[in-house]
Amino acid sequence: MKAFLENRRERIYDWMAREGIALVMFEDTEGRRDSAVRWLTGHPSDALLFLAVSRQAVLVPWDINMARVYGDADIIVPYGEFDRKPANALRLAGEYLKIPFGARVELPLNTSYTAFLKYIEEIPDYDLLCRNEGVHETVQDMRAIKDAEEIRLYRIVSAFTNEIIDLLEEQIRGEKLKTETDVALFIEAESRKRDCEGMGFETIAAGPARSFGIHAFPSYTGGAFAVRGLSVLDFGLKYQGYTTDVSLTFVRPPLSKSQEKLIGLIEKAYKLALAMIDGGDGVRDIALAVDALFGKSKRSMPHALGHGIGLEPHEAPFLRNRSDTSLRLQPGMIFTLEPGLYDPLHGGCRLENDILITDTGKEVLTGARIIRL
Amino acid sequence: MKAFLENRRERIYDWMAREGIALVMFEDTEGRRDSAVRWLTGHPSDALLFLAVSRQAVLVPWDINMARVYGDADIIVPYGEFDRKPANALRLAGEYLKIPFGARVELPLNTSYTAFLKYIEEIPDYDLLCRNEGVHETVQDMRAIKDAEEIRLYRIVSAFTNEIIDLLEEQIRGEKLKTETDVALFIEAESRKRDCEGMGFETIAAGPARSFGIHAFPSYTGGAFAVRGLSVLDFGLKYQGYTTDVSLTFVRPPLSKSQEKLIGLIEKAYKLALAMIDGGDGVRDIALAVDALFGKSKRSMPHALGHGIGLEPHEAPFLRNRSDTSLRLQPGMIFTLEPGLYDPLHGGCRLENDILITDTGKEVLTGARIIRL
Repeated sequence: MKAFLENRRERIYDWMAREGIALVMFEDTEGRRDSAVRWLTGHPSDALLFLAVSRQAVLVPWDINMARVYGDADIIVPYGEFDRKPANALRLAGEYLKIPFGARVELPLNTSYTAFLKYIEEIPDYDLLCRNEGVHETVQDMRAIKDAEEIRLYRIVSAFTNEIIDLLEEQIRGEKLKTETDVALFIEAESRKRDCEGMGFETIAAGPARSFGIHAFPSYTGGAFAVRGLSVLDFGLKYQGYTTDVSLTFVRPPLSKSQEKLIGLIEKAYKLALAMIDGGDGVRDIALAVDALFGKSKRSMPHALGHGIGLEPHEAPFLRNRSDTSLRLQPGMIFTLEPGLYDPLHGGCRLENDILITDTGKEVLTGARIIRL
Repeated sequence: MKAFLENRRERIYDWMAREGIALVMFEDTEGRRDSAVRWLTGHPSDALLFLAVSRQAVLVPWDINMARVYGDADIIVPYGEFDRKPANALRLAGEYLKIPFGARVELPLNTSYTAFLKYIEEIPDYDLLCRNEGVHETVQDMRAIKDAEEIRLYRIVSAFTNEIIDLLEEQIRGEKLKTETDVALFIEAESRKRDCEGMGFETIAAGPARSFGIHAFPSYTGGAFAVRGLSVLDFGLKYQGYTTDVSLTFVRPPLSKSQEKLIGLIEKAYKLALAMIDGGDGVRDIALAVDALFGKSKRSMPHALGHGIGLEPHEAPFLRNRSDTSLRLQPGMIFTLEPGLYDPLHGGCRLENDILITDTGKEVLTGARIIRL
């Protein structure tokens, strides 16, 4: 058993004991992904996980061979045993773990309305819960503050990301990578050389003709990259589950005045946000200050200022201007800062780096930048 | 407006009129993906869609610039207008479309239990429905039978897939592609040359040391491919949204007797299933016959025999042995047939092709095969 996985489960067991919850269920299957299963057991995907307040973990993987390599749990039972029906697995896990009749059992938070009604019909013996502020949101909150093992992994994957950023600049200046596909596949190949699991999300490489899209579609093509104008590159390396997320803008002159202005605004917004993080401002105030800066130039950003990263490319904390955001940054949080502006005529510009909040301030983990060619 | 998109929406409007439904909502956002939005409007992802029985479609995209290029709808309103809250978008779409108080409005089928309770609280003016056998399952059933435009696209993407299979065989026999990464990135590069959007899912290239995994993890590495033993390659090209899905096994002698036996079983199962499709057998009977064949050799297949493909790499119809499967194949269905067996010591073997059911029989669209080196 790996100590850091056991520690995470122990925190959940403690929470369950305090809350009077006998059993919780996590589901990571197609259409209902939940990387909490990986966070708690190391098993990469496609499994159910049951945690009992008696401090036992039952992992129910689709691929038993894979689980024997990666899965850390007290018992591993193949999903096939349950006809691949989650309610069957829940009922039998409950029997095996001796969960008493009437006990409180928490189902996955993203259980659909129709599925929840079916669970209630099929499993009348437990008090089934599906709720906000239950175990699943508690796990999300825990995951927003990275533990020592996670910070160790982030130092490794950030270093790989920075090596690749430097190689990309060199290769693009040397005109070795000419198309969007060249750039994306170069990153992919370099990532696998470093034993990464691959990309944390599909790389976006958008030449000047397509950089107006927040997430260009298709994400890369055979079209030219880093020719005259603004080209945006957004990628993340995934190492032992954890992904970085960086965006660079490659700038090839001559530029229009509007293009120069877009770049200037992004650089200003990025510096402003970093300074406000140092100043200890609340997240919403930072997002509103960036909005105000863009607003003065009659521009607006069509996405959030940033988001947490981890086993998911988007997870808590979310750096938003929404009125329901009251988040303050805390030591252990790792998140992106990514001001971006998009113009159908002049193209897009985005600068995105990954930030770790430490006990004494902040650390910018990645070295993405606006690169003038 | 594109006729094939309008035709699809017309079928939904007719269904709504028959069922007495005033408004339906589709949601394609992170964690709640639904390619029905693309099927109905052409907009590739990240949007809400409202269809009113008055035959109007309102598309609410995250990226308005993208929607102006791809989205086919009567009105397009950026999601930002609604503070990115689906309940706000629903309320305002209802007002705009003049949906009367008390009207029946269908929410996405995968709406979570907690989200459904919140919709009911925030939108008391409509009779909100979230149900099986409603519009969303009706759309899934419609999509299981491909229309003429979809079959046209499948002929194109299948031809590309077959070109790449031939190139792969040539390159691997010529020892030009040596690692799993070489193979995966070769496919990716060839796909983009053909104007594909990329891969329909992450390519799995598993050399003999890793082919025991149903879906090897990581999906490819710097390790050797197509060396002695059984190597499995599973990939799909995505063209205008539609993905193929094929698996090849590369066999490098000398083999153990167990490895030869695995290959023989897979070839037999594949032929048996094809013959039973020709014979008009029901899907469950075909799956059970394959199970029985494997069972005689004390083997069992840890996944379904096949699944529909389309805008999703897994969609209806599902070819399963489960007792709740009563499916019969119908003209227009496109699905995979993929017998596979996995042994932690000897490796895995899978053969997967894409089949179209026609008015007169079946057509095997793709040419994946077991390749003996």
